[in-house]
Amino acid sequence: MNGTVVRNIHRADAGAIAALERLGVATVHEAQGRTGLLQPYLRPVWRGARVAGSAVTALCAPGDNWMLHVALELIKPGDILVVACMTENTDGAFGDLLATSLQARGGKGLVLDMGCRDAAEITALRLPVWSRAISARGTVKATLGSVNFPVVCAGIQVRPGDVIVADDDGVVCVPRADAAKVIKAGEEREKKEAVNRERLKKGELSLDLYGMRKDLEAKGLKYVDGPLE
Amino acid sequence: MNGTVVRNIHRADAGAIAALERLGVATVHEAQGRTGLLQPYLRPVWRGARVAGSAVTALCAPGDNWMLHVALELIKPGDILVVACMTENTDGAFGDLLATSLQARGGKGLVLDMGCRDAAEITALRLPVWSRAISARGTVKATLGSVNFPVVCAGIQVRPGDVIVADDDGVVCVPRADAAKVIKAGEEREKKEAVNRERLKKGELSLDLYGMRKDLEAKGLKYVDGPLE
Amino acid sequence: MNGTVVRNIHRADAGAIAALERLGVATVHEAQGRTGLLQPYLRPVWRGARVAGSAVTALCAPGDNWMLHVALELIKPGDILVVACMTENTDGAFGDLLATSLQARGGKGLVLDMGCRDAAEITALRLPVWSRAISARGTVKATLGSVNFPVVCAGIQVRPGDVIVADDDGVVCVPRADAAKVIKAGEEREKKEAVNRERLKKGELSLDLYGMRKDLEAKGLKYVDGPLE
Amino acid sequence: MNGTVVRNIHRADAGAIAALERLGVATVHEAQGRTGLLQPYLRPVWRGARVAGSAVTALCAPGDNWMLHVALELIKPGDILVVACMTENTDGAFGDLLATSLQARGGKGLVLDMGCRDAAEITALRLPVWSRAISARGTVKATLGSVNFPVVCAGIQVRPGDVIVADDDGVVCVPRADAAKVIKAGEEREKKEAVNRERLKKGELSLDLYGMRKDLEAKGLKYVDGPLE
Amino acid sequence: MNGTVVRNIHRADAGAIAALERLGVATVHEAQGRTGLLQPYLRPVWRGARVAGSAVTALCAPGDNWMLHVALELIKPGDILVVACMTENTDGAFGDLLATSLQARGGKGLVLDMGCRDAAEITALRLPVWSRAISARGTVKATLGSVNFPVVCAGIQVRPGDVIVADDDGVVCVPRADAAKVIKAGEEREKKEAVNRERLKKGELSLDLYGMRKDLEAKGLKYVDGPLE
Amino acid sequence: MNGTVVRNIHRADAGAIAALERLGVATVHEAQGRTGLLQPYLRPVWRGARVAGSAVTALCAPGDNWMLHVALELIKPGDILVVACMTENTDGAFGDLLATSLQARGGKGLVLDMGCRDAAEITALRLPVWSRAISARGTVKATLGSVNFPVVCAGIQVRPGDVIVADDDGVVCVPRADAAKVIKAGEEREKKEAVNRERLKKGELSLDLYGMRKDLEAKGLKYVDGPLE
Repeated sequence: MNGTVVRNIHRADAGAIAALERLGVATVHEAQGRTGLLQPYLRPVWRGARVAGSAVTALCAPGDNWMLHVALELIKPGDILVVACMTENTDGAFGDLLATSLQARGGKGLVLDMGCRDAAEITALRLPVWSRAISARGTVKATLGSVNFPVVCAGIQVRPGDVIVADDDGVVCVPRADAAKVIKAGEEREKKEAVNRERLKKGELSLDLYGMRKDLEAKGLKYVDGPLE
Repeated sequence: MNGTVVRNIHRADAGAIAALERLGVATVHEAQGRTGLLQPYLRPVWRGARVAGSAVTALCAPGDNWMLHVALELIKPGDILVVACMTENTDGAFGDLLATSLQARGGKGLVLDMGCRDAAEITALRLPVWSRAISARGTVKATLGSVNFPVVCAGIQVRPGDVIVADDDGVVCVPRADAAKVIKAGEEREKKEAVNRERLKKGELSLDLYGMRKDLEAKGLKYVDGPLE
Repeated sequence: MNGTVVRNIHRADAGAIAALERLGVATVHEAQGRTGLLQPYLRPVWRGARVAGSAVTALCAPGDNWMLHVALELIKPGDILVVACMTENTDGAFGDLLATSLQARGGKGLVLDMGCRDAAEITALRLPVWSRAISARGTVKATLGSVNFPVVCAGIQVRPGDVIVADDDGVVCVPRADAAKVIKAGEEREKKEAVNRERLKKGELSLDLYGMRKDLEAKGLKYVDGPLE
Repeated sequence: MNGTVVRNIHRADAGAIAALERLGVATVHEAQGRTGLLQPYLRPVWRGARVAGSAVTALCAPGDNWMLHVALELIKPGDILVVACMTENTDGAFGDLLATSLQARGGKGLVLDMGCRDAAEITALRLPVWSRAISARGTVKATLGSVNFPVVCAGIQVRPGDVIVADDDGVVCVPRADAAKVIKAGEEREKKEAVNRERLKKGELSLDLYGMRKDLEAKGLKYVDGPLE
Repeated sequence: MNGTVVRNIHRADAGAIAALERLGVATVHEAQGRTGLLQPYLRPVWRGARVAGSAVTALCAPGDNWMLHVALELIKPGDILVVACMTENTDGAFGDLLATSLQARGGKGLVLDMGCRDAAEITALRLPVWSRAISARGTVKATLGSVNFPVVCAGIQVRPGDVIVADDDGVVCVPRADAAKVIKAGEEREKKEAVNRERLKKGELSLDLYGMRKDLEAKGLKYVDGPLE
Repeated sequence: MNGTVVRNIHRADAGAIAALERLGVATVHEAQGRTGLLQPYLRPVWRGARVAGSAVTALCAPGDNWMLHVALELIKPGDILVVACMTENTDGAFGDLLATSLQARGGKGLVLDMGCRDAAEITALRLPVWSRAISARGTVKATLGSVNFPVVCAGIQVRPGDVIVADDDGVVCVPRADAAKVIKAGEEREKKEAVNRERLKKGELSLDLYGMRKDLEAKGLKYVDGPLE
């Protein structure tokens, strides 16, 4: 697959993407059984964004952003570009010119397992970017990779067309086929949490709310009065 | 002590806590002889907070936040919850529901040697949290740890009832018995620094202010005129 | 050179410094052939600053900031203090008193391959600081190093009088003798980028703008229609 | 798939496994187009082994080795057990009792993205193990994962039945369907390398052997006589 | 306590030390409820040693080994020297001269949360050393620390007189008062493991040996026949 | 200098190289005032070698070993090849074919701030190699760097013709012009250490041997009898 670009991909349903975006990363991650979370070293270049979109995937060589340029042609409005790298690398593969181009093509955001530069300009553009590092170090255009094949990005397999959800808590990948199921579980979780939040706000304990006392006792938890010293 | 919870602890004096909070982390750390500073990988979820309080301590297993729930019951107004982990782990053991509960119980802040999620919500709640990472990754409730026993958190031993001071510079632990002595040293340091700050502001050199020139010469420091190239 | 201080250094031309400051780190780094960028673990204590100045260099022992005090005497208005460390160390070698002093002497900023403390105060002073960590941990004054000799700071050799440019993207070092050449290349790059930015904004692809298609084809890039699944 | 075990998997052809084992990790990795290499933090517990086998995959929670026990039942002679973990974790999930069991079931080796303990005993047993760390830290049996589903282990997707090749250079994964093609490319590479090795041994330069001089010149490489200083 | 040396400490019973040494790190760690294991970044300079002894503790400044010299005077035959550092540091605080001295005083080994140099000579001397790094970098003698106070070394609190056990699996600390209890638990564990090892060697599964099937089923583990692809 | 190769360099005197090799890394590092030690993450591929030679330097792009091939042509018998990388990278830039070539050209060893592959073969060849990692990951030949210009390798500036000394303790660089001075200081140190070693072996304390007691007292060190608990 190295050296190959896939032009067309299945994309996720717009309604599903909107629903997942609203739920946010933490809820979506729980709702799909605590799977799909990219490693937490991916951090937002600026705080406060929340986006979801279909993944267009690219695989780059270390210190090389050629495939990122190739991938831009295949971005459709609402997509999120997901860039993996063949080995650990923090070079600044993406900057303000590419940010301008990604926005012009309708891209909603970027998840980049390399470095990002022009942090101030990207913040001013309000383009949401999650990256492994901020680094001004430039890259070359010399080695082929792939576009729109499955990649492992920050420890998680992302396939083109999977739904990427990203916010201040990180980045989660939802397989396209699972979106409906995850939304349902997420919305139920959200409702339950809204009720629980109110009860916790009034001072109720999660020990009681979630009925943990019996399990703790069964596991052998002991209380002593103290103080010990 | 694994599998045991201590209900009651000695807490530090409220006046002492207020004095230490006002002094801040850097001054307190110096005032107690450069000891007690937790490792600097603990970072605030949001910048700008400064808090102090008596430590309620919990020890969790990696990927597991059960003991954090148990500890919440023992929080009294003004306390700071200090959560250590048995091994290095960045999973998101604390989120907005627990934040709501901690605030409802009167907790002033959280120091967490694991990950924190719901960063945006916790920022909105203005609950001060210092953690090893931000990560949406959920945790389980399966393994016992302990509550209100001494723990090693980010490289420092914290005992229940020790005073925790935390701000943008990090987190420092003051043994309860040392609080008065540290406050005295800290306030003296503060006074001296206020004077020094004014003199430095006027352009005086620290070399002269602190009388370092003689020691430097004794160590053998040499000056050459240069430029060398 | 350990144990020696050079009093006088050649400084870069003020006009050159101003021009490099305006260009910013990413452009300068590209303009000098992708060299001179300090490692990206150096991060600004606060976001939004951009400065350039002649480097005054200091080399400190781990956990020791003595040479930083010595260096302050040699700072002239507009200089940037560059502090290297003999081994990896995150201790808080610089705080608000030294910040006050550096500003009083006319220093424009600090690049510190150790830790920085008093982050809130330094932010309030608007003194631009790039450091390896934020840490309240205090340092001693016991071991000699050097001032105004070449140092390796965050992976790059910096000589006294080199131009340091720093912003949200990191820190780059321009050898004094290369400044004019770099400015020329940087300004040309900037002009070209301004044109390209407009074209990209209109939706043109970088593949076409930079004429990459032929090279990609020559390397063997293949397109398939897809979708594959 | 969490909470599920797949009993039967397709295994790779024994002849293919033997051929890949003979080629070794570096050749296999090149032969499949520089893909499939697990991250180099996986290191052998003892040096000098080289093995290949069909992957039986397990996914464990951090600090928990329950699924490893479940996977042992499904090991067939010649298999290699590949254990991924939900988050980064170095706890000692595998020790001499499990090593005894893995050998008794005919397992040829273990690739473990967690820690390994009983390093001395495992070395004495000559069981080849690649792990992220050596750590005596024990694990619990409390959280379900999966067995024989695709996992991401040390940055690479491994599916049950893929061929794992491991030696002192690390661990590479060959998709079962690609084995024949990779063997062919690897053996050709090996033949070419044997010839090249002899020529290099006689002092011929790789610049000439691989005909690089023209490409270097085309890229603009310049030679100067020197010495420069 | 900085700046203070405690001359006399309680030491553990020689019989207890011998028993713990025989059990080894992994068994001792399990036998005391999975506590007390120093972080796994401490690695032996050479493989194959196993030692136990009473801890003599020292706390050093980064880049400074002065207190290590002070501690040597207090070493009694059979002791293990445990050296903590105020911040993360890999400088070579211990080399062949100190190794000669430690052996001459009867010291059985060294646990060092800094770097070790003269690795070849120390290997030749067969002095067991566990350290954070191997580094030739020399240290100074300029800053006071403490000797024979409790220290946090590699994440674990070690008090003078605690029993240190170290082998290829790492380093574990047993509080002196717990030694008898840990030995009893460890020897029982050892007996049980000997039986289990024989049964596993014959091909029995740990699933059956430890009766895990029921718990797995209760947690909801499902089996499917497969193969899935 | 990127894109340029310097054919001829000054080399160090053969006698000086032999003398430095005999002294070894730790002694040489001390003898030149604790400077010049490359960062300790560089580790030998196999233990037990000690070499010294004149540095031939190369600078490579991440994931690219082209300049290493170019540098091989310039190796003269006794040289050590020093390879720096533009950014942090662990890819396997050097393997058994290049090792064969380096030996055929008379090269004595390799210092590589990237990864090394074919670890078993290189060990069998007894070619001394120090690298940042062992990794089978192959590299490309696409981007120019430089040969025989000063480079920063593992944190230290190395100029062509500097003397590199490497053994199990790491790698140290001695500027060619300093060799004689360093040898003299090293040999004196060695003599003094031989005497001290004998005295320490007999049980004398370094506190007395080096006369530290007075300095410790002057700094305020206090002794208490203890035990404290």
